Amino acid sequence: MPGQRRIGRSTWVFQNDVRIIANAAVAGPMEGEGKLAGSFDLVYGDLYAGQDTWEKAERKMLEDAVETAIQKAKLTRREIDVYLAGDLLNQNISASFSAKKSQIPFLGVSGACSTSMLSLSLAAALVDGGYAGYAVAGVSSHNCTAEKQFRYPTEYGGQKPDTAQWTVSGAGVAIVGMGRQGPKICYATIGTVMDLGIKNPFDMGSAMAPAAAKTIQTHFEDTGRTPEDYDLIVTGDLASVGHPIARELLESEGYHMGEHFQDCGLMLYSAEQETFAGGSGCACSAIVTYGHLLKQMAQGRYQRILVIATGALLSTLSYQQGEAIPCIAHAVSFEMNDKEKGR
Amino acid sequence: MPGQRRIGRSTWVFQNDVRIIANAAVAGPMEGEGKLAGSFDLVYGDLYAGQDTWEKAERKMLEDAVETAIQKAKLTRREIDVYLAGDLLNQNISASFSAKKSQIPFLGVSGACSTSMLSLSLAAALVDGGYAGYAVAGVSSHNCTAEKQFRYPTEYGGQKPDTAQWTVSGAGVAIVGMGRQGPKICYATIGTVMDLGIKNPFDMGSAMAPAAAKTIQTHFEDTGRTPEDYDLIVTGDLASVGHPIARELLESEGYHMGEHFQDCGLMLYSAEQETFAGGSGCACSAIVTYGHLLKQMAQGRYQRILVIATGALLSTLSYQQGEAIPCIAHAVSFEMNDKEKGR
Repeated sequence: MPGQRRIGRSTWVFQNDVRIIANAAVAGPMEGEGKLAGSFDLVYGDLYAGQDTWEKAERKMLEDAVETAIQKAKLTRREIDVYLAGDLLNQNISASFSAKKSQIPFLGVSGACSTSMLSLSLAAALVDGGYAGYAVAGVSSHNCTAEKQFRYPTEYGGQKPDTAQWTVSGAGVAIVGMGRQGPKICYATIGTVMDLGIKNPFDMGSAMAPAAAKTIQTHFEDTGRTPEDYDLIVTGDLASVGHPIARELLESEGYHMGEHFQDCGLMLYSAEQETFAGGSGCACSAIVTYGHLLKQMAQGRYQRILVIATGALLSTLSYQQGEAIPCIAHAVSFEMNDKEKGR
Repeated sequence: MPGQRRIGRSTWVFQNDVRIIANAAVAGPMEGEGKLAGSFDLVYGDLYAGQDTWEKAERKMLEDAVETAIQKAKLTRREIDVYLAGDLLNQNISASFSAKKSQIPFLGVSGACSTSMLSLSLAAALVDGGYAGYAVAGVSSHNCTAEKQFRYPTEYGGQKPDTAQWTVSGAGVAIVGMGRQGPKICYATIGTVMDLGIKNPFDMGSAMAPAAAKTIQTHFEDTGRTPEDYDLIVTGDLASVGHPIARELLESEGYHMGEHFQDCGLMLYSAEQETFAGGSGCACSAIVTYGHLLKQMAQGRYQRILVIATGALLSTLSYQQGEAIPCIAHAVSFEMNDKEKGR
């Protein structure tokens, strides 16, 4: 078919030089003291980020990340044609209110923790397809807003099992445009909702692992690539319970994932930080990718990486009505030019 | 710029024959008895639609609309590459759970009542750009799920002012593909978030009117079209309070909108039905457009229409924290071939 930009059913192939022109990651205090300390553009001294509520703090983080990325790209807001963003809060308020500040034409997206790669996939398609010159993709999450909304009043200090995860506070943003420099976005593989009947909201890793494995397998089948074609394959927030399950599922399908199969939720915090099974939340994959991994690519450590962000698409109400947790994963493939690698 | 598919900053121009291949609208009992009775593919006898909760009923409506549209298109689920959907419920559960049933690669979108045209705009871009052969765009809303989530317990029967609106129960779905028949999608104009400081959640029409007027004006400026170029220009759910405000705002900018400037929220219910200022909700613009307007186009009544869906991007929490209501509007332009008009 003429002009076709997909392989298989759900892998988008970007035909132009669609690249990350600039990226920014801002982080809460705990994230700023973890294993990736020094990777972030801004670390807030406390979880209020100078605001009077946690929700306003989360929004501020997203606004700051957008502003920082635009400055790093040496662009103005007016030069950006579309802003795609989402978050974990009901009705996507961090994203929507940040779009009020940025005054960039706005498309709200919603995929729980998969929203990082969902927004980036669409941003890349809109730039590649000619619908936008520059597009901004961004997400945020905040430990206290998520706790309060999804679990118990934050002050209650409810105990959790070790399978629980720690919602990352922060925001990550990428500016996508055509260019000759920066990591190129080559493919996006869009996920299908999976539900294996897991109902425990304190074990999202186990629920999301099959969706991650499925999208990774689809990506390999569509592109003909293998695990060895990547220097790093990193899931968003499966953490210590879910990540081994994803590895096992992929092994059982014949994919030997090796040591370079990792998880953002396991890369962020140090062992001393009490985060249960590891990090989660929209910002987990976003600040690790936009704060750490793309820098590592620019420094020549990685030539080609695949980021798979997983999302648990439940609400408190769906849980209360006895529903299992439907999950999804979207994958984006980043690549440095050979020429750039040598620089 | 080569391959550019936009004019101005935010109007997308679809270069291929991107059309509505099939569409479906399902409706609750009240909608089925209103002014557009007879327009819907399915009318449910009660608001439970055979389910045991209202939320499951809303999901069932969306699932039914998706299935109906796929059948009408004479396609199978497997032939559809992407499903874009959203709704009003927290965490978009109607859309996500319906995507579990359809097993089509899924992109969740979030724009409150603007989600109908948001999902359709992106579906058209993905098909036009070559990322999908067929795309499904869908939304749902349900009077009781919205009342329960956004306002008071539904059984409480709280009194409302006349500026309030009635959330439509139903779901509307369009299948977008390349073809030679059916309404062609020509342009999409993506909105920017506006906030004029209105805080009253019982007067969404007033809050959303400026966003509608702004997107309509942008559409005219970008495309060079005028109100006279359309046979019908229809807002999504401004209803009797908001629609005159949008008209006034456009008049003050020099656009004489005329009698063919209407509102889906005013087209749906009869005068005897007590719906305050009129209909609202994601499904309002969706079932009116997909159930009624596209049929009218096929029958030759309209050659060219513009649908502007508005969204109020608040949450109960943003309201409780004293925030004003940020609003957005996205517009899609539909057109019949001259040849088809004469059939």
